[in-house]
Amino acid sequence: MKIDNIDVHNYPGSEKIYIEGTLHDIRVPMRCIKLTPTVKSINGESVVLENQPVCVYDTSGAYTDPNIVININEGLPRIREKWIAERSDLEVLPSISSQYGNERALNQDLDKIRFAHQYLPRRAKNGCKITQMALAKMGIITPEMEYVAIRENMDCEALGVKSHITPEFVREEVASGRAVIPANINHPESEPMIIGRNFAVKLNTNIGNSALSSGIEEEVNKAVWSCYWGGDTLMDLSTGDNIHETREWIVRNCPVPVGTVPIYQALEKVDGDVAALSWELYRDTLIEQAEQGVDYFTIHAGVLRAHAELIGERLTGIVSRGGSIMTQWCFMHNKENFLYTHFDEICDILAKYDVAVSLGDGLRPGSIHDANDRSQFMELDVLGELTQIAWSHNVQVLIEGPGHVPMHKIAENMDRQVEKCHEAPFYTLGPLTTDIAPGYDHITSAIGAAQIAWLGTAMICYVTPKEHLALPNLEDVRNGVIAYKIAAHAADLAKGHPGAQVRDDAMSKARFEFRWKDQFNLSLDPARARQYYVESHKNDDHFCTMCGPNFCAMRISQSISDCDKKL
Amino acid sequence: MKIDNIDVHNYPGSEKIYIEGTLHDIRVPMRCIKLTPTVKSINGESVVLENQPVCVYDTSGAYTDPNIVININEGLPRIREKWIAERSDLEVLPSISSQYGNERALNQDLDKIRFAHQYLPRRAKNGCKITQMALAKMGIITPEMEYVAIRENMDCEALGVKSHITPEFVREEVASGRAVIPANINHPESEPMIIGRNFAVKLNTNIGNSALSSGIEEEVNKAVWSCYWGGDTLMDLSTGDNIHETREWIVRNCPVPVGTVPIYQALEKVDGDVAALSWELYRDTLIEQAEQGVDYFTIHAGVLRAHAELIGERLTGIVSRGGSIMTQWCFMHNKENFLYTHFDEICDILAKYDVAVSLGDGLRPGSIHDANDRSQFMELDVLGELTQIAWSHNVQVLIEGPGHVPMHKIAENMDRQVEKCHEAPFYTLGPLTTDIAPGYDHITSAIGAAQIAWLGTAMICYVTPKEHLALPNLEDVRNGVIAYKIAAHAADLAKGHPGAQVRDDAMSKARFEFRWKDQFNLSLDPARARQYYVESHKNDDHFCTMCGPNFCAMRISQSISDCDKKL
Repeated sequence: MKIDNIDVHNYPGSEKIYIEGTLHDIRVPMRCIKLTPTVKSINGESVVLENQPVCVYDTSGAYTDPNIVININEGLPRIREKWIAERSDLEVLPSISSQYGNERALNQDLDKIRFAHQYLPRRAKNGCKITQMALAKMGIITPEMEYVAIRENMDCEALGVKSHITPEFVREEVASGRAVIPANINHPESEPMIIGRNFAVKLNTNIGNSALSSGIEEEVNKAVWSCYWGGDTLMDLSTGDNIHETREWIVRNCPVPVGTVPIYQALEKVDGDVAALSWELYRDTLIEQAEQGVDYFTIHAGVLRAHAELIGERLTGIVSRGGSIMTQWCFMHNKENFLYTHFDEICDILAKYDVAVSLGDGLRPGSIHDANDRSQFMELDVLGELTQIAWSHNVQVLIEGPGHVPMHKIAENMDRQVEKCHEAPFYTLGPLTTDIAPGYDHITSAIGAAQIAWLGTAMICYVTPKEHLALPNLEDVRNGVIAYKIAAHAADLAKGHPGAQVRDDAMSKARFEFRWKDQFNLSLDPARARQYYVESHKNDDHFCTMCGPNFCAMRISQSISDCDKKL
Repeated sequence: MKIDNIDVHNYPGSEKIYIEGTLHDIRVPMRCIKLTPTVKSINGESVVLENQPVCVYDTSGAYTDPNIVININEGLPRIREKWIAERSDLEVLPSISSQYGNERALNQDLDKIRFAHQYLPRRAKNGCKITQMALAKMGIITPEMEYVAIRENMDCEALGVKSHITPEFVREEVASGRAVIPANINHPESEPMIIGRNFAVKLNTNIGNSALSSGIEEEVNKAVWSCYWGGDTLMDLSTGDNIHETREWIVRNCPVPVGTVPIYQALEKVDGDVAALSWELYRDTLIEQAEQGVDYFTIHAGVLRAHAELIGERLTGIVSRGGSIMTQWCFMHNKENFLYTHFDEICDILAKYDVAVSLGDGLRPGSIHDANDRSQFMELDVLGELTQIAWSHNVQVLIEGPGHVPMHKIAENMDRQVEKCHEAPFYTLGPLTTDIAPGYDHITSAIGAAQIAWLGTAMICYVTPKEHLALPNLEDVRNGVIAYKIAAHAADLAKGHPGAQVRDDAMSKARFEFRWKDQFNLSLDPARARQYYVESHKNDDHFCTMCGPNFCAMRISQSISDCDKKL
């Protein structure tokens, strides 16, 4: 299938391979990039030297497996179904539990936009602790844990690269809260992945229709598109019509964990009337979404009434939608944020489905001016308290972070987050390192994201070129994802993530040997690299157009090198 | 005039202003961005509050002054002509001195492509020390020094921002070698600018035809284009036909300092035959270019024969064109690099015209694998020796740096450069923080450039999206320059450059108040910001399309803020 002229069922020059588990019946997919051989002239004879293929992390799911027939009306293969079905701590419910979900199910007008196959939801049996964190604490290495251990290491073993990442290491990290495996028991289509500072840096992309856009198929295509380019998780931030039905299509067709901000949908349910929001409505929304299979919820439970008093000090007030909604609610009702006062009950619900909580930073700075201010850090302290409450329920926790931060203030964010939030994984939006480049905020923020990820941020949330200006189209999503893949990979290199440099080295070797096709196939965006090259080259020339035929440094350097060996 | 649909004679919403000197008869141009007022409702009444205009550094030269008629056949106004003419240490030569230049002048076939007005070159009188560095050491504050002091501070005084940058401070920095004012006495069209760690971070762009491209008018347009978007200096890396004549057009029409790599032209003169290069040919090329007005030369004098022995350790050998040419020459002749052996004579020539030397890093790493290796650092040591030789001739010095460097190895580059090269300004290409994103190397490198500039690099050399793949077109140049303006500005913020945050704050205030036009005009690329916005907005809505009308965080935050004030 082609989206925006790209065949999203195929990575050029690549093969989908699977590595099997040893503890569990699991198959971990990888993308294996095949390389052409090096041809050298040694003593006048042409010698052909093979180049080993390069295995890379693959977020594209079944879409790039030629042996799987894709049908978005059926949804993706439910790879975790068997693991989940075999568990004794879960039960299948006779029907969905949320009032709203049931209303939507009965509404025949929605039949035409409804995902055809309705699966019955699963939930923890009474008294059972079922989250990955709970199991990890019990000493259990789940299939998900072994899966991510293999996935993180890619072909380290084959390459002779030493890695600290074993299934047992994964278990320890999840048990301690330092890492999160978002894995709702109702999203068996999702391929397990892990978010933590001792693993590869992950990136999240946001999609979602708004009141001003866009249809269901378009949203599913955006999800496939995001995964194709390398998105590790996907947040559905829809605020328009038919959020419930759109989400069902997305979750059933999404090979990566899906996150949402439930307050957005809750607000849609009351037609945008903030005053009409209530705990009961929100609670029903949590259950509705948990049973659909959403893997993590952003919850702005740390924005307290007292913080709002401080926003007068700011240049740009509150720029988080969730934060501004909850603050407005507090003012209207003269009450404390109900997400904070009901946080224990929220965790009870999340624990039943293994939905992770991503503690939203409702007071993240929206400008360089407001970075690292009192409001921001006071909220961070609250997020630290909430982290411990969530962990006491065995709910996995992510902490969301800024926003707009100049480079010299980035490290303080990371350090404080580690200290105040007890090493729960940090998940940041950028940060944007300047405010003055609308139209290029994927770049202002990739600069900050690379730095904060190097310092320990576990997942970075992408920003597209349209940030602050408009909703992103497919091309913007692609540009945003690639900018963030660059930031994440640059951070992996700097952190010394096992095997990260293998791909760089293969690329550079191909570059030095003028193996252009290998360069394209090894690059983060093979289609773009090829396109730029083809537009200006007539054939497989042994020089780049930068220098021209007489000046190619690498060609001269090769000839020096050959000459050197002859001496 | 429009280039690629952009009116390069106009910044939207801006006025060209000039600030006069107090020591010298100078007028320093700035771009003053006018803002619309803030309209607030206070106690039910509409109150209009003015917003001060924002003055920003302006690299566009006379092109954006509506009072100056531009004619590329005439060249730009020669703003430094009077200052130079008044000096008693310079003489006007009766004709150009280089043999090659004279041959070209006599060739009537070239008349049709020749810049019409031929100025007689100036040179230092015998025995006179005439460079900005020499004058600074004598305690003289030149017009150029006062000019850059005013230019760096923009409107700090008006804003009440304290700045350390005074004319005397500039003089001290130039005298010590910590800063460079590239200001060939034969390039009076150039508006003085300064490169040093205690000043705003500058960015260089590269243009130039190659054997595969492009005409004279196109090259001049590229120069104008680069300056319009914010390029602080311009390197002409032409390697094709008519380099001499093309350069004359560029220099006469370029409001920023122009740099070249003279060995490129020298090699063209011998039809690409490296063995045929000689000191005599190179010397004539230096004189030819110095008398045309080139402000700095990249000279690969630090690549020694001994270093070449080490490149076998590398994955990507030598990736600098100059470095590979000189290494090949050494091998062919079994001699030491003639740029090294003749470095004293080179400095003698440069000192006569005040051409700065940019000591090329011929052994810069071309891959993550080769970063910070022995060859690279051995060359850096040699560059340190050469720096002191150049300074002893009062020649101003820049040190060129990598290249491809992972984030965790960037700081070592900066620290060693400062130590080994005695604080001469560092001028780096990126560095690229990963090898795996051809097509996006403006981003892989902006990440590294922002970091190294924060750590003290004085000028960063842009990289376009086409790096490694093809020659950049106008759109690539624009994308490369803006990515690097972002990196430079992010570094200025992090360094606390006086007044740098004023523009960010103005932007964020405009954003919070939904003053869209001000946001466009304040942004690094007003046309792009406006285009993205207009494509998805029907009118001046008080929300961004990101959130939609019901969810706008800033609107809600404003209403909270208003509500708060009423309490």
